[in-house]
Amino acid sequence: MTTERPAVVVVDAETPGNVGTIARAMKNFGLSDLKLVNPPELDPGGEAYGFAGHAREDVLPNAETVTFDDVVETHHTVGCTAITGEDSRRHVRFPFKTPAELADDLRTVDTQTALVFGREGRGLDNEELGRLDEVCSIPASADYPVLNLGQAATVLLYELRELTTEETQLPDVERERANEADIERFHGFVADFLDASGYKDVKREKTRRLVRRLVGRAHPTDREIHTLLGVFRRATGQLEHRQTLLDEYDEPDRW
Amino acid sequence: MTTERPAVVVVDAETPGNVGTIARAMKNFGLSDLKLVNPPELDPGGEAYGFAGHAREDVLPNAETVTFDDVVETHHTVGCTAITGEDSRRHVRFPFKTPAELADDLRTVDTQTALVFGREGRGLDNEELGRLDEVCSIPASADYPVLNLGQAATVLLYELRELTTEETQLPDVERERANEADIERFHGFVADFLDASGYKDVKREKTRRLVRRLVGRAHPTDREIHTLLGVFRRATGQLEHRQTLLDEYDEPDRW
Repeated sequence: MTTERPAVVVVDAETPGNVGTIARAMKNFGLSDLKLVNPPELDPGGEAYGFAGHAREDVLPNAETVTFDDVVETHHTVGCTAITGEDSRRHVRFPFKTPAELADDLRTVDTQTALVFGREGRGLDNEELGRLDEVCSIPASADYPVLNLGQAATVLLYELRELTTEETQLPDVERERANEADIERFHGFVADFLDASGYKDVKREKTRRLVRRLVGRAHPTDREIHTLLGVFRRATGQLEHRQTLLDEYDEPDRW
Repeated sequence: MTTERPAVVVVDAETPGNVGTIARAMKNFGLSDLKLVNPPELDPGGEAYGFAGHAREDVLPNAETVTFDDVVETHHTVGCTAITGEDSRRHVRFPFKTPAELADDLRTVDTQTALVFGREGRGLDNEELGRLDEVCSIPASADYPVLNLGQAATVLLYELRELTTEETQLPDVERERANEADIERFHGFVADFLDASGYKDVKREKTRRLVRRLVGRAHPTDREIHTLLGVFRRATGQLEHRQTLLDEYDEPDRW
């Protein structure tokens, strides 16, 4: 996104805890601009701060109280609702985007976007949605599609994470796959191990293919493949050593 | 998924509210099997039921108290944690899957899976993770990747929704795009409208292309395109009518 990160707007929140939950999700996914329309009191010793995690240090105390008009006049607005229109006969809640579609779309747009969430009990009303530019809805079970306010915001911010977080906590996994040469060495060790275990040709080949499929699916790390190399080398060595000792017992005439 | 829907396991939850939040997310995304290891007391008048939404009617009262051993012995287990290993030198938390990768993977597996979440303060410990089959971690801001327990469960269940919800509340949008013939008719009306407005050829063509691009990106619904057809037809008619009247005034000799 070539633009500022989205603001999050909460209209008429009733429960301070939900504001805290949203602030936490914002910090988890790299956002900081929280705007509140007609907020409940946010006591630093109360639930909002209790639910905010580390966002109690910045996102929550920096939240700005605004009017709905302010937001509509200065932002590209996306209204979030569980309840969409069924078709285009009424267009207050139709068409809509899913969070994944919204993420794809915002990627190419240079604007100041505001993600607008409504009150806990009944969300955004039709008059409010009618003034917003787009509608976004989270696909959920037809039996019970209404997420809690804080949970809905968390899901939406999670979906937008690639636009809003420069770096995640997760290491780059690509580099961590074992290289193919080591994996092939491993398969050679498996063959030696099966030989040493006394497998006959046909069964040995079947078993090797099975192991190749299993390991192929698991994409082993360097560490894993080297540990397994050691396991099979040791086992093969022990099998051969013990067989040698047994063979000596079996040939007493050699003594 | 050719298998049972995943169970959700919460180990040593401290806050009843989080258990309620997880139950609600389960119902939102089509899950029902909640298992609790060493749960807090879940008073039907308390926070767990308060946070559960409609899941207070089924998921929460049907939750089963189990031991960690029970779960490990009977399920393919996925441990959820914000803190992964950096690389394969220690494999308690490495490799890991993201929720999207886990969803892709479980799609092809026929097994009884359990999604295991740890306590609020410190998640699952290394001894517990060491006994689970896979690790899953939600990508989040490197500055603050630790989601609240209930929010983390919500994100993971959201990502698995295609495996767990047969039908969402969202209507099928494909059928709701206006057909191409109507959109072309609309572009014809725009041309007539520009003519009637007195646009000259070059500017008229540029403006028509601009409108074509704008409408092409917006994928209008039937309702939208028919409304716009009406708007332009009316405007063109009015422009022409008024011009006719004006022309009559300009030619007094005709009278």
